[in-house]
Formats: sequence, C-alpha cells, structure tokens
Amino acid sequence: MIIVMKSGAGRQELAEVKKRIRELGYKPHVIHGATRNVVGAVGDERGKAVLQSLQSLSGVDNVVPILKPFKLASREVKPEPSLVEIVPGLSVGGDEFIVMAGPCSVESEAQILQSAHAVKAAGARLLRGGAFKPRTSPYSFQGLEEEGLKLLAAAREETGLPIVTEVVNPRDVELVARYADVMQVGARNVQNFALLKMLGQLDKPILLKRGMATTIQEYLMSAEYILSEGNRRVILCERGIRTFETATRNTLDISAVPVLKSQTHLPVIVDPSHATGHARLIAPMSYAAVAAGADGLIVEVHPRPEEAASDGPQSLKPADFAAMMKKLAAYAEVAERSLATGD
Amino acid sequence: MIIVMKSGAGRQELAEVKKRIRELGYKPHVIHGATRNVVGAVGDERGKAVLQSLQSLSGVDNVVPILKPFKLASREVKPEPSLVEIVPGLSVGGDEFIVMAGPCSVESEAQILQSAHAVKAAGARLLRGGAFKPRTSPYSFQGLEEEGLKLLAAAREETGLPIVTEVVNPRDVELVARYADVMQVGARNVQNFALLKMLGQLDKPILLKRGMATTIQEYLMSAEYILSEGNRRVILCERGIRTFETATRNTLDISAVPVLKSQTHLPVIVDPSHATGHARLIAPMSYAAVAAGADGLIVEVHPRPEEAASDGPQSLKPADFAAMMKKLAAYAEVAERSLATGD
Amino acid sequence: MIIVMKSGAGRQELAEVKKRIRELGYKPHVIHGATRNVVGAVGDERGKAVLQSLQSLSGVDNVVPILKPFKLASREVKPEPSLVEIVPGLSVGGDEFIVMAGPCSVESEAQILQSAHAVKAAGARLLRGGAFKPRTSPYSFQGLEEEGLKLLAAAREETGLPIVTEVVNPRDVELVARYADVMQVGARNVQNFALLKMLGQLDKPILLKRGMATTIQEYLMSAEYILSEGNRRVILCERGIRTFETATRNTLDISAVPVLKSQTHLPVIVDPSHATGHARLIAPMSYAAVAAGADGLIVEVHPRPEEAASDGPQSLKPADFAAMMKKLAAYAEVAERSLATGD
Amino acid sequence: MIIVMKSGAGRQELAEVKKRIRELGYKPHVIHGATRNVVGAVGDERGKAVLQSLQSLSGVDNVVPILKPFKLASREVKPEPSLVEIVPGLSVGGDEFIVMAGPCSVESEAQILQSAHAVKAAGARLLRGGAFKPRTSPYSFQGLEEEGLKLLAAAREETGLPIVTEVVNPRDVELVARYADVMQVGARNVQNFALLKMLGQLDKPILLKRGMATTIQEYLMSAEYILSEGNRRVILCERGIRTFETATRNTLDISAVPVLKSQTHLPVIVDPSHATGHARLIAPMSYAAVAAGADGLIVEVHPRPEEAASDGPQSLKPADFAAMMKKLAAYAEVAERSLATGD
Repeated sequence: MIIVMKSGAGRQELAEVKKRIRELGYKPHVIHGATRNVVGAVGDERGKAVLQSLQSLSGVDNVVPILKPFKLASREVKPEPSLVEIVPGLSVGGDEFIVMAGPCSVESEAQILQSAHAVKAAGARLLRGGAFKPRTSPYSFQGLEEEGLKLLAAAREETGLPIVTEVVNPRDVELVARYADVMQVGARNVQNFALLKMLGQLDKPILLKRGMATTIQEYLMSAEYILSEGNRRVILCERGIRTFETATRNTLDISAVPVLKSQTHLPVIVDPSHATGHARLIAPMSYAAVAAGADGLIVEVHPRPEEAASDGPQSLKPADFAAMMKKLAAYAEVAERSLATGD
Repeated sequence: MIIVMKSGAGRQELAEVKKRIRELGYKPHVIHGATRNVVGAVGDERGKAVLQSLQSLSGVDNVVPILKPFKLASREVKPEPSLVEIVPGLSVGGDEFIVMAGPCSVESEAQILQSAHAVKAAGARLLRGGAFKPRTSPYSFQGLEEEGLKLLAAAREETGLPIVTEVVNPRDVELVARYADVMQVGARNVQNFALLKMLGQLDKPILLKRGMATTIQEYLMSAEYILSEGNRRVILCERGIRTFETATRNTLDISAVPVLKSQTHLPVIVDPSHATGHARLIAPMSYAAVAAGADGLIVEVHPRPEEAASDGPQSLKPADFAAMMKKLAAYAEVAERSLATGD
Repeated sequence: MIIVMKSGAGRQELAEVKKRIRELGYKPHVIHGATRNVVGAVGDERGKAVLQSLQSLSGVDNVVPILKPFKLASREVKPEPSLVEIVPGLSVGGDEFIVMAGPCSVESEAQILQSAHAVKAAGARLLRGGAFKPRTSPYSFQGLEEEGLKLLAAAREETGLPIVTEVVNPRDVELVARYADVMQVGARNVQNFALLKMLGQLDKPILLKRGMATTIQEYLMSAEYILSEGNRRVILCERGIRTFETATRNTLDISAVPVLKSQTHLPVIVDPSHATGHARLIAPMSYAAVAAGADGLIVEVHPRPEEAASDGPQSLKPADFAAMMKKLAAYAEVAERSLATGD
Repeated sequence: MIIVMKSGAGRQELAEVKKRIRELGYKPHVIHGATRNVVGAVGDERGKAVLQSLQSLSGVDNVVPILKPFKLASREVKPEPSLVEIVPGLSVGGDEFIVMAGPCSVESEAQILQSAHAVKAAGARLLRGGAFKPRTSPYSFQGLEEEGLKLLAAAREETGLPIVTEVVNPRDVELVARYADVMQVGARNVQNFALLKMLGQLDKPILLKRGMATTIQEYLMSAEYILSEGNRRVILCERGIRTFETATRNTLDISAVPVLKSQTHLPVIVDPSHATGHARLIAPMSYAAVAAGADGLIVEVHPRPEEAASDGPQSLKPADFAAMMKKLAAYAEVAERSLATGD
C-alpha cells in the first residue's frame, strides 16, 4: 500500500499514519516528496483491505494498493498454465481449443437430443443446456429443473458428450452435481459467495462466468473463493460487459482474454452468444476469440431458434454452427491449437 | 411488441411474421411505411419474452417492446404509493423521512451498542449492521454471523430501534428472519432469484438494493420476483451504479429516485455511503436525496471509522452524523416531510 | 510517480529504472517490499506524463501517478473559492444561487423574447439560447447562427438579462464574443483543445460543460487549458454522463458537484435538462443540485415545448419553471444561498 | 416513429397526437392495443428529430424511432462495400488487409525516418505520425506542428509510404491537407461538426475514429456529416470505448466491427494501441481484428518506446511489430485477405 499524504499535512499527521501502519503489522517507509510525502506500508498486503481504513485519518489524501489481492489464481504464484480436466482425455487450457455448444434451455427430449447430435457432429466436445434458468422476469420460463438434468444425462448417454449446466441456488448444488460434468456459475452469480464457497468444496470443474459489471480484479477474487476452498478446477469465461452501447446485448471485452491469461494460470473461454445477443455476430466473435488467445468457446445452438423458449435471437442453427466450426478450425491452426471438426 | 421489418423484406416474409404472431396468441397489425413495414403484435405482452424470438425470422430487422414487463410493482396497476410498515407506528413511504444508520459490520458488543445509542440520539429510526458480509475477497472479514445477529438484537432491546441486516444465502433466510425487522438484499444479490423467491414468502419487509449494473427496468423485475410470491413489503434503494468515473466508488444515480417513483408505487431510499465511498460526500448526497424525493436513507456510521473492519473510509463519525441530521431536517421540511432529530 | 516493479525483477532491472528516472530529472527512492520493490520518483510530476514511458522498461509492472496533474484549477494552489463575474453586480460562485434559463435553440424573435420575459419574471439571472447548434445529425436544425445572436442581443436589450450561448467553431469565437456575455462550450467540445485555447485568450467568462465520458480529472485538465492561457473566469457544469442506464438521456453525476468543489476553486453549476432528457425530472434534479452544493443551474425553458425545433421533451413550460423556482428558493435558503424569484 | 400512448390516455389525447403528426407532414396510423394504443407516424422520418417533440404532449408515454437516421452511410442505400482509394493502387476496404503504422508523435527526423523504414520493411502500407497532438494536459508535448508535417513528407519521399496524420483545428485543415494523404479525426473530435463539415469538402480520404462514448449510431451520423458534404472517402476506426474496466486504457469493442460492416458500406479498421494502452496486448487484438472482419489496422510503433514523448507504453518496438505482421498474414489468409509482409 502507498499512503499519499495531503500537500498541507504536517509532522504530527505523518507520525499518526506511521503509528497506525505499525499497529496494523506493517513497516512504514516515508518518501519525502517535492510537494507532499508518501508512505509505503511494507508487508504482504493481500487480504488486508484493513489498510484502506487509513484513508479516514486526517492528513491522508489517498490510499493506493500496489499488490493484486488474489493469490491462488495468480500467475506470480503459479506461472505455468493450468489444465482443467473435464473427463479423462478431455481438458481445457491445453493445446486443444474446446467448443461447448447446445441450447440455452433444455426444452424437451427431442430438442436436446437433436441439439446434442448436431453439435457433436460439428466438433463440439461438451453439450451445454440450462435446466435451472435465472430469468430477469418471474413470468418467463424458469427451466425444467431436475427433469431437464435427466434429459441432459440422456443426451450424454446417447452422444458421449460431457455436459455443462448452470446451478443458481446453493440448495441445488448437490442435485446438479449428480448430473453435471461441469457446473456453471452464471454472470448474475459471480459474486454469490455462498454459492462459490459450496462449489469450492466439490470435486468437479467449475465454469465461472464474468459478471456484467465485474472488473477483472474482482472476477479473479471470485475465482479465488472457489480455489481457496480447495477446488482448483476453475474455467473462466468472458461473456460481455455492460456498457453504454446498445447495438449489442453486451460488449464483448475481447482484451480481457490476454489480460486474464497474463494475470492468472486458469483457462479462459469466450461466450459470444450472450456477449452479442445476435446470431449473426457469433461467428466473427468466435474467430476473434481464438485469435486473441482464448482456450475455448461456449455457444448457443438450437434446432429452431425462432421457437426457442429463451435466447432464440442469439442461437445458431445447426448448419450455421457446422459452417462456423470449419472456419474456426483454420483460425485455430494459426493460433497453434487443435480443433477437430466432426467429419 | 413492434416488429420492424427490413426495408427489403418481401410479401412472403411479412406473411411469415404474421403467421408466427398468431401462433403465439397475438393479433398482428401491419403499418405499411414509406420505406419499410412494421407489425404490431396486439395482446398483453408482459411476460412474453417469447415474442423476442421473432427476431430470428428472415426479413425481421428488429423487435421493439412497448409494454413495461412488470405488473405488481407498476404504478399503472396501483397508482397510489405504498406504505411499507416496519413495526407498528413506523412505516417507509409516508410523510416521515426515515433514516436507517449504523456500522457496516457488527464487530463487538461495545461497538454496536455505542453505534445504536449514537444514531438513535441523532434521530435515526432503524439500526443497520451486517452480520453476514459479502466481501470481494475471501480473505476479508466475513462477519460475525449468528453472533452478530444476537448483538443486533441486544442493541434493539436497549434502544428500541428495529434492525435491518443483510441475508446473502437462501439457507440463512430463516435464521436471519428470527432476528431482523427488515431483511436486506445487497447489490450483488439483486438478481439472486432463488433468494428473492424465498424472501417473497416471508411476512417481513425487504430492503432490496439496486445492483451496480442493473437497469431500472431489471431492478423492478427483481422487485416483482418478491411481490409475485406474495410479499408486498418491498423497499427499493438506489446505492450507486458502476460507471467509468473513479473519483467515487460508484456513481449515485440520483435521477433514479424520481424515475422509480413515477414507475412504481414502492418506496425508494438512498444509500449515500456505498454510492460514494467517501465519508465527506455523505452529507451533500443525503441532502440531494431528500430534495430529489427519496423516502429515506441508509447511512454508515461507526464510532471509530479508522478502526472499522470494513468500509471505514465511507463511514461517518457519530458527531458528523448528528450534525448532518440537523440540516437534513431542514431540507426535509421543504420537501414536506417530517424528520425528527434526537433532541 | 510510484513505479511498481514486477515481483521477479532483478537488481539490474531496478538499476535501469533508477537510471532512467534520473535522466528524466527526478530523484529515485526505492522501498524494498516483502514481495516486490517500488520506486518513488521525487520531483514535481505535473505535466510530466513522460514518466509513464517507464512502463515500457522490462521489470516494471505498473506506474502509478500520485499528484493530480492540474495546477491553476486546483484548490491546493488556490484554496478560496473563485467568484466569476458575469457583469458588474452579478457573479457565479458566491452567496447567490444563479439560474440561467431559456430555450435550447433561438428559433424566432417572438420565441426568444417570450422566453426571456418569462424566465426573468420567474427569477432567472441569465438568458440561455443556442444560435450555433452541434447536432448529432447533419439533417437536423443547426441554428440561426448570427441571426440568432442578434435576437439574443435584442432579448438582452429588452430584459436586461445577460446572455449565455454556445460557440462550436474556433472560427466563430470572435463573432460570438461580440454578442455573448458568457461563452458556452458544449459537452462534445470539452476536449476541443483548439477552441479552449482561443477562449483562454478572451476576457469573457466561459461556461465549460463536462463531456459525456470525461472523468473529473480530465475535465479539470480541460479547464486548465483555458486558465493557462490567462482567462481565469471559468464556470464548470455537470450535465450528465453516459452510462448503461437508458431510462434517462444521461446519468446526472450529482456527486461530481461536491467532488469538484473539493478539488477546484472554480464554481460548479448543474444542467438538469441535458442530464435527464425529461421535463418532469428537471425540478427534482434542480432541488438535488442546490442541496448538493451547486452554485447554480442552467435550465431549458420553452414557451411551447411540443413545437420546439430541438430538445422539446426536456424543456419546461414557463409556468412549471416559475413554480419550480419558488420551491428552489426554499431549498436555497437551507443551503444558505440567496435566490430571488421574480415577484 | 412509433408513439406509445399512456395506458390511461383518452380519446382527446389520441386525437391531439394524430393532429400534431399530420401538422409535421406524416400520416398517423393507430394500433388499438390490449392495454394501450400506439400510433405509427408514416413517412421518411430520417432527419426528423422534430417528431421527438411529440413526447411533450399529454397522453404520450414514449416515442420510439424505427428508422436509422443515417442515409449516405447506410448499407440499405448502398449495399456493396465501398473501396476508399488512398493513392492509385492502394485502397482500404478491398481484398488487401491494410496496416498503417508509425509513432504516436513525430519527434525528430531520425525518429520518423527510422520508424518509416522499419514499418515499411515489415509490411505496413501507410505511415502514421502525429504533428498536431490533442493532449489531455496543456502541459504535455503538443506536437511539432508544421515542422512535423514536413518530416512526415520527407519520410514519405524516402520510403514511398503515404502518410496519415491528425488534424484537430478547422483552421489547420488546409495546412494539413497540403502534406497528408489521409486526414485523421481523433476520438475527441468525432462530434466536432465544424471540423467534419470542412473535411467533407476536401478531395482526400478521411480516417474518422470513433469517440470514447459514441454509440455506433452516433458514429455513423458523424460519418454522414462528411459524406453529406460530398466527400465519400471515409474510413471508420474502432479504437476502444470507455467502460468501468481499468485493466485496459479503453475497452476494444470488437463486435463493433461486424456491426458496423452490416450497417454501412464504409471500410472499418481497428486501432489496438489506443484501445488497450499496453504494448503486449497489441498483437492479440490485431489478430482478433482481422478475424472479426476488419479491413485494416492502425498501430503505434516507436524505435525506443521508453523514450517516446507520448504513448510509449502502448507502442511496439520494430522487431515486435515485424513478428506480429508475420502471424497477422497467416490470420489474414484464413480471413481471405491478402497481407504482404516485407520480405
């Protein structure tokens, strides 16, 4: 921490700051500047938000943190990238560029099976589908719940694709974990710390989506909640942030991919469907994602988007998905990643 | 819903849109425009996000919702303002301007009792204090949990002030409800729908804070989750939104107060502490809040902010709070609100 | 400046940073930390953005500025508030709360005279009106230009109200200055440095509006452009920033008022019309502005808003403006400001 | 335009709206809805912001524009993409992916010549360099002005690279046009309409950067200012928007590329340097840009970034630029674009 004194602060105010720094277990170190003094608080400041309270002292202009507050997620602590294993033989964060695909919501057996076969044929390695849906409106379709999980399991049985599905309530963690291969935390729950702590105690990979207004630093702190409970299998996912622009549903923060990869060892994938809200933008954003260094994608694909119970406008038709996968493979090759498309 | 056709869309594409509108249970009504056609879908569109799926049809340029999607929270449905009773004789949303005050976290018996006496003496009508703290970092102080609730209850016993405290986990709803007079939902949980649904089944007032990136419409949909479960005692709270400006912790969206009050019958209070992050901005923002038409405030007050376990920089000292309350009463009078300060 | 070294940086990288700091005319001062070193660059860093280039050195993690980069606008340099004189006997920044009012655009002689008489009768002290209009669309009404300035001058002649009007092109500065008492710089031109420099050479007060995405620090740097050319009569104006919220045209950053007043000695007024875009929000936001400590307002008033050539939806009718002024005077009294309403 | 009536609006209020629509030259068309009526105003609404004034009528809830307000920039008006010729044999918007590169500011003859040779050798087709610099602080280096233009011309002479350079003041348009091959409008001037109108009268290509808080629709309206004056050679440039995220200088809105290309026929390039502010993010964002469908790039390259007078931290070293160009060529090939790297 750097404590910046006011330009008019006197000797006594400086002494008070130094005393308080010592009380908090740090060593003060003063730099006498041209127009004001600054005081370094030497010690491991991570997790010591309490130093922020120095700002209440008279004579203090500002308190500037120097260290990043996350540890287990940090590249400084673990420089080599983490490989998150989904099932034996399938990992995210390695050479293979991993595509997860499927409908927004599980709606019926026919719909999920048709989706699963289609995305598998095109090269997807996981099937996505929502059984518990967090919807803005209480009057919207809320998901098939356990029935949806059973249909996902049936689709896995038929196709061999592992499944990724969202959990929204700590109460349902155990239930969802009985069916899911990867537990997804949605953007709205990125700071649902009660949920994160429970997922930290599971032995399952977690797909943690960035929130709409979550800074990269806060996002890594949320990952840290899971990691610090013992579960090291966290996959990050950039899915668009909220900005003033309304031409897209959110604004895909593509530079978050290399920024995250420089700060953390965890794998990073991209969700172009929620980021843009428009089916016709999914392909260009998917190409951009692999070129920017992402480790994979999660994409909404629906057999008949115009009849989808949710997110129809941002779902690809199977044929468009298959065409995109072909071109994606060519981009992946330039990025030195493997991506096998179905046939 | 208004469905805007592309300028080049032909007769067949228009027919397809009309057919699909009818299938969804609406009546299509075409306006033939100078450069393109638009189609109105006549019917009660609330809760019918499914109309959005029309956007996937070829020939459709855009789908524009006309109706606001909330019902029970709406002023159109209930034009007169709602009075939310806290305890007999104390309500939010009426003539009295209600101030809730106290520390961010409950830290010790001495701290919470000292706070309670101080804020009561200055005219606060409820005591705030956190026992379950949602913290960005897993390494930060997470609250005293049930012990904190007990200390709050002791402070209520001593001062007679009802207490408002946060619940973050659906699992803890019953526990917190045993102690709290008002259950608070924090900004991070504004779209934690599992939590909202449980609170909708309680017979207790709920203080629902706006999220950092929640639009006013989404915010009212979250209130609708509680209302639609049967609990009509919801108090809204503007607490700052996330913007590009870093001089303040968040940006207090003061115009949200009259906007909310024109769209909903629910009472609206303001949290100047979290909105600004700086103790010296609390008084001017509190005056602005009452002048803008708010029904009350929730303010952080701590006996010794420089030693606070959380949010020290944005907590008022008791003497500063008392001074602010005096001036606030004068502003309240102009706003035709009563506000009794302690003595 | 504080230069934060990477945790793995070695002795040689540190030596390189120290050498470069000395070359730039500063004194390096190293704090040896627990996990990494930081280096203070001692000297007057203002205007020395060149220190940022240190970030390109290997071993440097981050460069953190400590000093605020503005001088002449700063409260540290000039602690007492500045009074900006408009005409003898009329100043902004003192005890009187100053209201400027009038139509968005000057449209006709009848319209501007009617407006001028109406706003004067209600207590406004300056007449606003646009002759050069910066419009988003090239096909929108662009203002009456010099003819508009002449009509404003005629309205001043009739009512005695000084006039504030916008200049958008450096080429027109001289022309506008022949008519205007206060030269307005609109939000879109807040970083039109060529224009600011020319206005810095005038002997006229400048009303400098904040831009839609201008941080408070950048805003004060723009004021500094005018001040550093010799013109010390700058009035600041918060007029809403761009955020994700669409219920209002912009988001009025009301906390910018006390933040600005703590950082600069310049007076600060508020424009509730552009900030909100809705006539019905002008009164509550005006009350909030005076309560938050603003020195005045600039408000759009039009005799017939439904026929206005621009900004009709955010213009008050004269009767509504007069009613607002009455209540505003009561709020001003609590804020210890004088505000004489017409009669 | 769609005029949405309030749910309680009566027959007379509807009649008033219809009358006013007719007065403005449109044909009203009413849809009688389940809970409220909406009125379509049939006619070419572009450039008719005046319809917005209907919002001031009692009984009107909201006014929703249907048509996009730009014409000449629109794909609906001109479906095929525009090729903007820089010099004979060199165009932006066609098969070739065009890279413009060079230092932020022209600092000296040696610096600009060295830069020019380096970027040419690596495959850049234009040389960028600023002679007039819009700087946030009046105390920062403001550019060499005409001397800088002469040095750019000398570099063109030596290398054959056409030059792109910024103009910030309408007064300097003629001067800059004597030297520049492409006139650049910076982000801060995207709504400097006086400047845009003058550039619209030139016979030179214009590189128009998006502003930090400019929506895509506003951005295309700014292009329309240039086009409507007669100059059809406009190149658009996404360079990052301002959001809450501070890990990058701005947030590169990569989805703006396909969105712009679907709405306009004008070419679109990307500026990864200003978008991110960090040299190490330039390569991944450049790859993302070509994959997303951009027509080119403008990149900052400096022989010694750590000594740059401006923007050092976001400038590539020549060797890193050359390495990036090699990989960029491979991505361009997948995107079916040609990109010749130097050797």
